[in-house]
Amino acid sequence: MLYPNGLKKTYNKIITHKNRGMSLEEDINESNTYYLTRDIGIIYKKPVPITIAKVDFKSRQEAVIKEAYFKTPSTTDYNGIYKGKYIDFDAKECHSKTAFPLSNVHAHQIKHLENIVNHGGIAFLIVRFTLLNETYYLKAEDLIDFTKKNSRKSIPITFFREKATLIPVKIFPRIDYLKIIDNLYF
Amino acid sequence: MLYPNGLKKTYNKIITHKNRGMSLEEDINESNTYYLTRDIGIIYKKPVPITIAKVDFKSRQEAVIKEAYFKTPSTTDYNGIYKGKYIDFDAKECHSKTAFPLSNVHAHQIKHLENIVNHGGIAFLIVRFTLLNETYYLKAEDLIDFTKKNSRKSIPITFFREKATLIPVKIFPRIDYLKIIDNLYF
Repeated sequence: MLYPNGLKKTYNKIITHKNRGMSLEEDINESNTYYLTRDIGIIYKKPVPITIAKVDFKSRQEAVIKEAYFKTPSTTDYNGIYKGKYIDFDAKECHSKTAFPLSNVHAHQIKHLENIVNHGGIAFLIVRFTLLNETYYLKAEDLIDFTKKNSRKSIPITFFREKATLIPVKIFPRIDYLKIIDNLYF
Repeated sequence: MLYPNGLKKTYNKIITHKNRGMSLEEDINESNTYYLTRDIGIIYKKPVPITIAKVDFKSRQEAVIKEAYFKTPSTTDYNGIYKGKYIDFDAKECHSKTAFPLSNVHAHQIKHLENIVNHGGIAFLIVRFTLLNETYYLKAEDLIDFTKKNSRKSIPITFFREKATLIPVKIFPRIDYLKIIDNLYF
């Protein structure tokens, strides 16, 4: 079944999570909590962007949104600060074993990541090849470079294996991406 | 009429805007667009945090949220990057002529701003005294200092006039807070 642009992820989040293993998003949220509680870094997931059309004020205590629509995000899902640097990234699960479809990333998200790099921030994607159980840290610079040099609609797994950094999945934190940043930038 | 914590702002946003002058939020959003289109800084307002309870998938094209609830924000409304620095702030309108009630800022938001400062970011509040037509840039450090040294439940306007920076309201951008940051940090 097909969903409108960007909604499949949200749909999964709401409806089907309880019956599955840990998603990449859950892994990252847990890692962010780990970083936050230990005062290592301050990184949050942004709320899902919506347009609110109708709100019922049942009582002083409770307002209920009765009609709202998902909006296409203008930026990425996660941002924050680590060692004084601005951090910005998105996380994507990929169900192919051979390539990451670029339809997963909106053109304006790539532009956003490029802007962040140009302004001195650290920008990247975390991509999990679910069926391979491989999770990669892909620098925004390499993503942008790929899209500029290729007309392909997907990034082959070989590109990740050569250019990106494999993030070992640990117990605590599960996705220690700040350690990758330490190795790349500090 | 009283609304539950933090909801009045949202309610205003949805329902009553069309009939009023420009709100502080609109001024800031327009300034952020100005900064973004001129590649000066990349600062966005975060979406309103909600908990989604029910979604209808009418068709492939359209998903409608039929039930959702406002959540108390864990952080601030705005963040981004300027000259390589992480920027984090919240914006508040105040309808008193004499003092800014601290009930406008959640304790965890103050804690968040303090964390940002400790990690090397630039954190602040933009407070507009609507009836005085005065808009201030208040450094998070001064806000935190005030809350630690005082048991008062509001910050008097005299504190703003002494410690904070008055932001002149211009035509374009209307709230040039990055210029204040230039003067304070660069």
